[in-house]
Amino acid sequence: MTGARLKHYGWGREGEGMSAEERSFVLGRYHAKFARDEFETIKVPRLEELVLRTPRAVPPASLAAFCTSERYDRAAHTYGKSYPDYVRAMLGDYDCVPDVVAYPRNEAEISAVMDWAGDIGASLTPFGGGSSVCGGVEPRVDGIKHKAAVTLDMRNLSGVVEVDSVSRAALIEGGTYGPALEEALKPHGVTLRHFPQSFEYSTLGGWIATRSGGHFASLYTHIDDFVESLRIVTPRGTMETRRLPGSGAGPSADRLFIGSEGVLGVISRAWMRLQPRPKFRASASLRFPALFDAARAVRAVAQAGLYPSNCRILDPQEAFNTGAAEGGVAIMVLAFESGDHPLDAWMARALECCADHGGTAEPAKGGDAHLQGPAGLWRNAFIRMPYAREFLTPAGLINDTFETAITWDRFENLHDTIKAATERAILEATGFKGEVTCRFTHIYPDGPAPYFTFHALGRHGALLEQWQAIKTAASDALIAAGGTITHHHAVGRDHRPWYDRQRPPLFAAALRAAKQELDPRGMLNPGVLIDP
Amino acid sequence: MTGARLKHYGWGREGEGMSAEERSFVLGRYHAKFARDEFETIKVPRLEELVLRTPRAVPPASLAAFCTSERYDRAAHTYGKSYPDYVRAMLGDYDCVPDVVAYPRNEAEISAVMDWAGDIGASLTPFGGGSSVCGGVEPRVDGIKHKAAVTLDMRNLSGVVEVDSVSRAALIEGGTYGPALEEALKPHGVTLRHFPQSFEYSTLGGWIATRSGGHFASLYTHIDDFVESLRIVTPRGTMETRRLPGSGAGPSADRLFIGSEGVLGVISRAWMRLQPRPKFRASASLRFPALFDAARAVRAVAQAGLYPSNCRILDPQEAFNTGAAEGGVAIMVLAFESGDHPLDAWMARALECCADHGGTAEPAKGGDAHLQGPAGLWRNAFIRMPYAREFLTPAGLINDTFETAITWDRFENLHDTIKAATERAILEATGFKGEVTCRFTHIYPDGPAPYFTFHALGRHGALLEQWQAIKTAASDALIAAGGTITHHHAVGRDHRPWYDRQRPPLFAAALRAAKQELDPRGMLNPGVLIDP
Repeated sequence: MTGARLKHYGWGREGEGMSAEERSFVLGRYHAKFARDEFETIKVPRLEELVLRTPRAVPPASLAAFCTSERYDRAAHTYGKSYPDYVRAMLGDYDCVPDVVAYPRNEAEISAVMDWAGDIGASLTPFGGGSSVCGGVEPRVDGIKHKAAVTLDMRNLSGVVEVDSVSRAALIEGGTYGPALEEALKPHGVTLRHFPQSFEYSTLGGWIATRSGGHFASLYTHIDDFVESLRIVTPRGTMETRRLPGSGAGPSADRLFIGSEGVLGVISRAWMRLQPRPKFRASASLRFPALFDAARAVRAVAQAGLYPSNCRILDPQEAFNTGAAEGGVAIMVLAFESGDHPLDAWMARALECCADHGGTAEPAKGGDAHLQGPAGLWRNAFIRMPYAREFLTPAGLINDTFETAITWDRFENLHDTIKAATERAILEATGFKGEVTCRFTHIYPDGPAPYFTFHALGRHGALLEQWQAIKTAASDALIAAGGTITHHHAVGRDHRPWYDRQRPPLFAAALRAAKQELDPRGMLNPGVLIDP
Repeated sequence: MTGARLKHYGWGREGEGMSAEERSFVLGRYHAKFARDEFETIKVPRLEELVLRTPRAVPPASLAAFCTSERYDRAAHTYGKSYPDYVRAMLGDYDCVPDVVAYPRNEAEISAVMDWAGDIGASLTPFGGGSSVCGGVEPRVDGIKHKAAVTLDMRNLSGVVEVDSVSRAALIEGGTYGPALEEALKPHGVTLRHFPQSFEYSTLGGWIATRSGGHFASLYTHIDDFVESLRIVTPRGTMETRRLPGSGAGPSADRLFIGSEGVLGVISRAWMRLQPRPKFRASASLRFPALFDAARAVRAVAQAGLYPSNCRILDPQEAFNTGAAEGGVAIMVLAFESGDHPLDAWMARALECCADHGGTAEPAKGGDAHLQGPAGLWRNAFIRMPYAREFLTPAGLINDTFETAITWDRFENLHDTIKAATERAILEATGFKGEVTCRFTHIYPDGPAPYFTFHALGRHGALLEQWQAIKTAASDALIAAGGTITHHHAVGRDHRPWYDRQRPPLFAAALRAAKQELDPRGMLNPGVLIDP
């Protein structure tokens, strides 16, 4: 990691943020939405103003070289990037501040921290980039069951260790941030092509631990499929799975740790499957009368076996909000890419599928079409969006997103019930009409991954309760309609109540038993996924 | 299931088998290979001649309607279809005969059998079609730790319960055999397209429990990816995962049971992702100077993102043995299929990849090209092959197969060391030069799944030891070269020593803990995957 340090409040590094023009665009949409000229805005406390508890633990001399209890480090590791995180940070609530932040430089130091944390009865929270939007990195510790909170920041285990160009795979350290990872692969002509919205401020280990969703709209939707083998440090020792392109030897060991959200161990390294850098691209933007027309086109494309790299649709309001359309039409951003061959046949057939469902294409011009038009506008908004929350929250605006997946037969019902339940909850919780929009982020032959965004005008002093009421109503509707509480944001602490309803109790029992075996003292990320 | 009953010894149903012409072709190859006019052939005992121990358990009246201790049922559930299974059955060794075979008709009856077996301290062996080639269904019980052996045959939980044509998925009972499954899907215009060699005599639940490898050479190589949700009966109760096209909510519950080989529970039902019936096909057969040339072409195709449904290569000897070529050339059978679009662009690019590596194509004529020429010859040999063992074993011939997967960078070394080690072991164990051939069954961007066949002239009275010596040498070489002990045949009991070396000990500990939770009495398929 280079450059300025990460913000303790907000997205990215200190000094970064939206330009005045961008802020004005984003706020303008809210002014119009809620018929307000301005919003009552409160001040976020500066780092120096925060009141942090005296650390409840001091690392021994043997760990001192890579551990700290400095104000900045503790504050910057208290929260992830969820809406309630922003609110509590804005209110100066740092009750969950870790006592110690460790920056181990190798596996031996990870093990040493685990041993020490275990000995003093502390919790241990694995921390990648800290971009969790579901309470995945907050050390919520009561001081009784866990006597202190230690956070393990993986940033010093960074780098591409080895590239196997023949098999197109690389051995990469768990703490490697997205940009550093791609930078190191570039000279080899390969790329992981895993670009979650958090790409700049998240790590390989974090992606794997949370089953992160990435660049590819179809086929390789999650990081899961790129994992060739894992190395994991647990409190019981270190394990490594075999590098294999495929296997049928027992239940997949990798899959037990993919999505384990830091409760079973820390992913120190992984062999990852890579892609060639794309040489051929075919892109198009399409307009549809309504979301469900676009959804039927997506279904046709998904079931055709064409595997677009991008096949995202935006409902009319979402297209308007992000500037991708002037309103009243649903948008599809469609793209194919290949490092090997031209994609005319693929695109031609996909466009036929779209036309069958009322899609009209604006064919893209030139090779950088994915950077132009609605596609480019939406792409840019997508990357910049996380910067908005640091000023929207102090303005009393509640904006959040949640995502799910559902089979096609139940999608329209799920969409309508979630939208209605969330809109109703916004009105009831805030007294003002809000907005709920939908897009698809990933698609499968048997169903889409719908992604919802909601906007509400909150009230200072009640933001947390208002957000919780909306979140609860949306999640209840989602689970009742048959969806998954998360498609790629992970479970963390925020989704636990619904994850518990979704997950079969006997699987929870099996997972708890596995955790008990690997983490007998229950120190790893307590409260996430299971209660040990 | 209709028609004649399954053989207690041999492949398929009573009355089935190779024609005189097929037998003569197969035996002719062995006569030539070992320069013999005939082989000393011993007689396999008839069902009536078998000596079976008196059953050590009698089911209570409440279970009597679907349980039996009849001679045929017990004998037909003693073994799978591995080479040592054939030898022991031929020698009349039925020491592992189950005491009771249960044919439950619903989940309640499965649970009732589990309760009873637990109460009397019996083992319980889940049984699909019994086609295991690695000791997966044999109740190897000592009478002390487990006081009796009960086998649970799932054939009565058969049928397609529901088809969701919109999402292209179906709810299917675990005991459904391949042909019945496809027959029921046909009127809906869909197909599971999972065609393992055992297709006719294996079940959906068995495929899932063993991570069966199927029809598609790329992309959907295992049954794993077709699983949308599972219902599992465990000794602790029944669980069901949610029907989802994708999810990021914690470690995949399905993946813990996919490949669990009956040690965690019994798969009673599954929602499976389906394919459209193919309307378009493009097929070709290609010749290459040698296996490694063909392998480099396969690598190029696999890394091009073209996803052929078939991309199998046969080394020169394998091509000769199966009649696919006259000798001296490696063969590639290449095919694309789609229910949606013509495949000219796909095939054209794949043929370019092959030409780059010395492949010369004989383009196929007409739409049923996959049934003609080398492709058709090989396909037919593939389907008929399992019938050969029932007469090759009594002729004292040792023929067996094993498969693995390896990354491309290590493939050539793995191939050469395995071939050399296996050939050496054959010579040492039998005194005669044998033969080891190789083909690819499935391919990945990061490596192939090589499949080896070996032929040896054994000696009656020593067949088991000879086979074990060869198997051990081959497996040792495979594990040392970095492969997986099984790509799609499963682990069972035969692969345990090498699976134990391949699998990280901490994963074994986690799996053991999960089993302890779901199967506290350790009754389910003891000895498979883990020692509880």
